[in-house]
Amino acid sequence: MPTYKAPVEETLFLLNDVFDWSRHGNLPGFSDAPPDIVEAILEEGGKISEKVLQPLNLSGDREGCVRNADGSVTTPKGFKEAYKAYADGGWIGLAADAEYGGQGLPYTLAALINQFSASANMAFTMYPGLSQGAIAAINEHASPELKKQYLPKMVSGEWTGTMNLTESHCGTDLGLLKTRAKPNGDGSHAITGQKIFISAGEHDLADNIVHLVLARIEGAPAGTRGISLFIVPKFLPNADGSLGARNAVSCGSIEHKMGIHANSTCVMNYDEAKGFLIGEANKGLNAMFVMMNEARLGVAMQGVAISDVAYQNAAAYARDRLQGRSLSGPKSPDKPADSILVHPDVRRMLLDIRSFNEGARALAIWALLQADIARRSPDEKERRRADDLLGLMTPVLKGVLTDRGFDNAVKAQQVFGGHGYIAESGMEQFVRDARIAMIYEGANGIQALDLVGRKLPKDGGRALTAFFEEVQAFAKENAATPEMAPYLDGMKKGVGDLQQATMWFMQNAMAKPDNAGAGSYDYMHLFGLAALGYMWAKIARAALAKKAEPGMEARLAVGRYFMERTLPETATHLARVKTGADTMMGLPAEAF
Amino acid sequence: MPTYKAPVEETLFLLNDVFDWSRHGNLPGFSDAPPDIVEAILEEGGKISEKVLQPLNLSGDREGCVRNADGSVTTPKGFKEAYKAYADGGWIGLAADAEYGGQGLPYTLAALINQFSASANMAFTMYPGLSQGAIAAINEHASPELKKQYLPKMVSGEWTGTMNLTESHCGTDLGLLKTRAKPNGDGSHAITGQKIFISAGEHDLADNIVHLVLARIEGAPAGTRGISLFIVPKFLPNADGSLGARNAVSCGSIEHKMGIHANSTCVMNYDEAKGFLIGEANKGLNAMFVMMNEARLGVAMQGVAISDVAYQNAAAYARDRLQGRSLSGPKSPDKPADSILVHPDVRRMLLDIRSFNEGARALAIWALLQADIARRSPDEKERRRADDLLGLMTPVLKGVLTDRGFDNAVKAQQVFGGHGYIAESGMEQFVRDARIAMIYEGANGIQALDLVGRKLPKDGGRALTAFFEEVQAFAKENAATPEMAPYLDGMKKGVGDLQQATMWFMQNAMAKPDNAGAGSYDYMHLFGLAALGYMWAKIARAALAKKAEPGMEARLAVGRYFMERTLPETATHLARVKTGADTMMGLPAEAF
Repeated sequence: MPTYKAPVEETLFLLNDVFDWSRHGNLPGFSDAPPDIVEAILEEGGKISEKVLQPLNLSGDREGCVRNADGSVTTPKGFKEAYKAYADGGWIGLAADAEYGGQGLPYTLAALINQFSASANMAFTMYPGLSQGAIAAINEHASPELKKQYLPKMVSGEWTGTMNLTESHCGTDLGLLKTRAKPNGDGSHAITGQKIFISAGEHDLADNIVHLVLARIEGAPAGTRGISLFIVPKFLPNADGSLGARNAVSCGSIEHKMGIHANSTCVMNYDEAKGFLIGEANKGLNAMFVMMNEARLGVAMQGVAISDVAYQNAAAYARDRLQGRSLSGPKSPDKPADSILVHPDVRRMLLDIRSFNEGARALAIWALLQADIARRSPDEKERRRADDLLGLMTPVLKGVLTDRGFDNAVKAQQVFGGHGYIAESGMEQFVRDARIAMIYEGANGIQALDLVGRKLPKDGGRALTAFFEEVQAFAKENAATPEMAPYLDGMKKGVGDLQQATMWFMQNAMAKPDNAGAGSYDYMHLFGLAALGYMWAKIARAALAKKAEPGMEARLAVGRYFMERTLPETATHLARVKTGADTMMGLPAEAF
Repeated sequence: MPTYKAPVEETLFLLNDVFDWSRHGNLPGFSDAPPDIVEAILEEGGKISEKVLQPLNLSGDREGCVRNADGSVTTPKGFKEAYKAYADGGWIGLAADAEYGGQGLPYTLAALINQFSASANMAFTMYPGLSQGAIAAINEHASPELKKQYLPKMVSGEWTGTMNLTESHCGTDLGLLKTRAKPNGDGSHAITGQKIFISAGEHDLADNIVHLVLARIEGAPAGTRGISLFIVPKFLPNADGSLGARNAVSCGSIEHKMGIHANSTCVMNYDEAKGFLIGEANKGLNAMFVMMNEARLGVAMQGVAISDVAYQNAAAYARDRLQGRSLSGPKSPDKPADSILVHPDVRRMLLDIRSFNEGARALAIWALLQADIARRSPDEKERRRADDLLGLMTPVLKGVLTDRGFDNAVKAQQVFGGHGYIAESGMEQFVRDARIAMIYEGANGIQALDLVGRKLPKDGGRALTAFFEEVQAFAKENAATPEMAPYLDGMKKGVGDLQQATMWFMQNAMAKPDNAGAGSYDYMHLFGLAALGYMWAKIARAALAKKAEPGMEARLAVGRYFMERTLPETATHLARVKTGADTMMGLPAEAF
């Protein structure tokens, strides 16, 4: 049976020592969360993850969700109670506006709590996670009436949210979507169509489900410019907030999936269901992007979350498992064999994961802070810069942290040998659950295209320039500290390769966009590695400042490991970017 | 629903054009298999895989095996009939001695047929595959009486075989095993103990199951020098070959696993079961190694097999799926969207897989031919050289082809987007099934250690020298052909990095063995890539020789893709090898 311990101490080190949390104390929400409050929140959030959510992870996977004959869906045993505890604890509305019952705390904190929850039980965490995304989209784009009607119930967890984009013939290419909306004459619309892959589309955790649905209003332009966003509740709320009539939306079936079995993935049928427009007609994608961007960061966090819990279990197994002897002579001659931690190759697997985990958590926090600054800073220039960086890094985080998170789950499973292939170990579940994070909210290849095709050139490359400037300033600031040399050297090598790859695109992709497409995936990973290198340099600086404290020396060693073992990959990515599109695009389609 | 087409043409090209099959015509078995016979065998073997085994793959996964209250195990619907068809077709004994009812054909052919079968249905193929390994071990080490008693029934498929090594406290470290054997006084032994992870340990496909069991004879030395190998049949055969009494061996439970659900993975309990010694007492590991080496090659083939079928399905999906438009303008303006094959990043995923598949199949054939030469050549020097190369390459094939095979299954699944995460697509099953190949028959980290710790230094590095000489001779032979330049350059770069890594070990690992352990995994992958580069150079030469024929130009382009996109990874592996063990071994165990 796997176990989980929320990394509260590690998170506090990053927030306080690496990112100097207190310096944001002037921002709304942050003023309510000085370090001691942050610590208390992380500890409480850690506890509910460890004690309530984690014990349901394995059983939830085995039981899965069941769709009943009447179209209702039953979640695994214990989920209802756990959800109630989670909602009652105020965890769903941690960062939501106080006006609607939220606590108005920094988004960064809410996302870190979600990371703990996802480590403990990823399938569970999707239910409140989707609510949070829907809350954000409604909050930003819906009318005051709709906000008043929906947000308090969603923030409290009485109702949950979903996002309905995909149809069977369109996933990435939303311009093809067919679900239609007909004005009812009373301001509402009648929504008709079928959506697939709707996470948490139907379940028994909450009284009502608030679907955010993309549809095309009759007569709207073709393609993505004719898509609108609607609220379609399962039950239509009465004016007093009580539940009224059942809406014409139902779950047609649920999918049998590789993982996240405890989250119901539904085919949703809309049959002239009553819907309420969010924001302007035909501008639905804009509104949905609020939810999608938040969801993409949430998915990136899932990558880190699974990597973290997988590491914890693999390290514990490696410490306990006795097998073979050290190459340099027995280390526990009194025992029948040494712990497998004496084998360098076992340490390689563990350190590959661990050196990712701390760097990735730092990178996530860095990006989450940009999100908070972009929304809360009083300084317009600061807001713009943070928004630039967030936009740039969102696809990098989503693509790289989920790819590597999955690879790490596989590595952690490998530490267990044959035992890792058996369901009881829980390790194979981590692999199956982590796999979806590379796919949903925009497959990682789409993230790479978003990065290279949209985010890089946007505003004349302003965001990328801001990133490079920040890294260069950091390098300069620490150039005189000799102990920083191994970290700065690694960082500069990674960032240098990223600069070269960027240059190559500038010279070769303008005239031939396929050259950008062909290198996009490697560029995204190169970017992620360079950014992780920067994070490790920041971590090293903070650790050097309190070197004598426990854990700091290990941290510095893990950082060196990252520089020695992981960062060299940037060279391969750069080499691939530079090969361009000719070889791959030269093959005719029928040759595949 | 996934589909499968056996790659008969591709295999024939490799056998005939790349490896000049006919030149082995003087060897026993080969003389019965001139190219037209080989073609007929591959076509028939392809057919049974496509028509009988593949249709049971998805349903077999969903149904899984069931252990009944009486300890018997029921395999999924259709497996019994399919097994009978497979056995009746003579496929199990294709390479077995004619003396025992086999066809005596080259082992290479049998392994290629197994590769087709594993693409079609990996879980099924394990049943006859384990029999083949057991047949080989019995054939090489058992007494004439035991051979006569067991082999004909196993070759015909009436009985199947298993290998029993693992116990709950010992997998890699067999020296710890506790199962004991007590002489009965009549030449037989009473075997008592528990074995776990026994594939095909109990099932309903055959009349009898012949367990090959490692156990310790009372009073034997501790460690690996006190292990003996026994035949323990489920039913004790009478002198006339009919089945006698039920032996005291039973299936205590079956495992719930990540994949290969249709193969029963059993806990086997031996309770003074009657066993018959194979070979010498206390030399059991030697005898078992015959089976293990054959099994390791078989597992390597599974990596290629899954990668192949996953590619076929991903390529078909990519051709048909319409989504988005080409970056260089619409390619199918008459359709609502272009096929996703217009996107370079989709081609990247497909070509990563495909450029592996052909190279890996070539590498497998090259190694399989060494196995045949080592056993069948009349020339002792040739036998020894082939045996050297086979020993050297077995861990490389097992480790690298299964790691990359799994990664490719993940990539192929990614091509499907969300649809790949759904069970019906079959793509997620490929991932789950492929995962075990990295673990069983010696986890891949153990393969790396075997390569670096045992195979490299053996006989003063004779095997590695033979490999380098072969590659150098090939380079020299083709140096004057300008069209070979891109392939030779890539190959030489990969092999050069391998030479550097070898040199680094020679200089740094003698005094400090952990330096070898720390770099072993990267060295193994570096070796695999260098060998694949060599294979692609050989393929290119054969393709250039018949350039005008269909498919050859595509093949040459795929080979260039491999050189441009995959081979650059060798630099990262070399860089990692050179970092040594210091950083990772410096961390105290409690810091993990």
